[in-house]
Amino acid sequence: MAHLWLRVVLDDGDYFGPGKIELLEAIEEHGSISAAARSMGMAYRHAWELVDAMNQAFREPVVAAESGGSAGGGASLTPWGASLLQRFRAIEERAQRATHRELEALQSKARPQS
Amino acid sequence: MAHLWLRVVLDDGDYFGPGKIELLEAIEEHGSISAAARSMGMAYRHAWELVDAMNQAFREPVVAAESGGSAGGGASLTPWGASLLQRFRAIEERAQRATHRELEALQSKARPQS
Repeated sequence: MAHLWLRVVLDDGDYFGPGKIELLEAIEEHGSISAAARSMGMAYRHAWELVDAMNQAFREPVVAAESGGSAGGGASLTPWGASLLQRFRAIEERAQRATHRELEALQSKARPQS
Repeated sequence: MAHLWLRVVLDDGDYFGPGKIELLEAIEEHGSISAAARSMGMAYRHAWELVDAMNQAFREPVVAAESGGSAGGGASLTPWGASLLQRFRAIEERAQRATHRELEALQSKARPQS
């Protein structure tokens, strides 16, 4: 079935979508930004910039990182980061459910795959 | 208030989002692909490729174009193209409405603009 791919756009134009949210999930799983980036095939610098953008976008940081040390330090989601993650997934699910019928109708008009 | 930005992704990976949909709206308004592209500051070739992708994605074409002639010919939405446009806008509206409360909650956590 057809599905939605969505971003949440805040008033000032900051947005977050699947890329940033998957990065949060990977940080939660791997316990560091560098390991999370590696698991996604993403450059560390890019991952760091995405985390920084999210930390700037909200009143509270989403990721708490310990920098330094030869191992590069660890990182974890703050309670707000975990909540953001959960809320984004809830928004996706709710939007998908609310448009289920329209999506089904559009899929039925799609050209069959050859 | 925060808002959603979304694409519809069909089973085979084809998708359409605001860019393609705005192009359909511009074709409806201006009556040709070239005039529509110009109104959006988009290269004609890129607009043509987007239209072609949409025409390929569904069982019926979304845009009917008369090619040739020194004026470049006109283009208009087919009934299915007009319907696709309308359905996409309905999906956006429905998804936005279904997630209104969550979006409001996220916006309230956004850092105030400085």
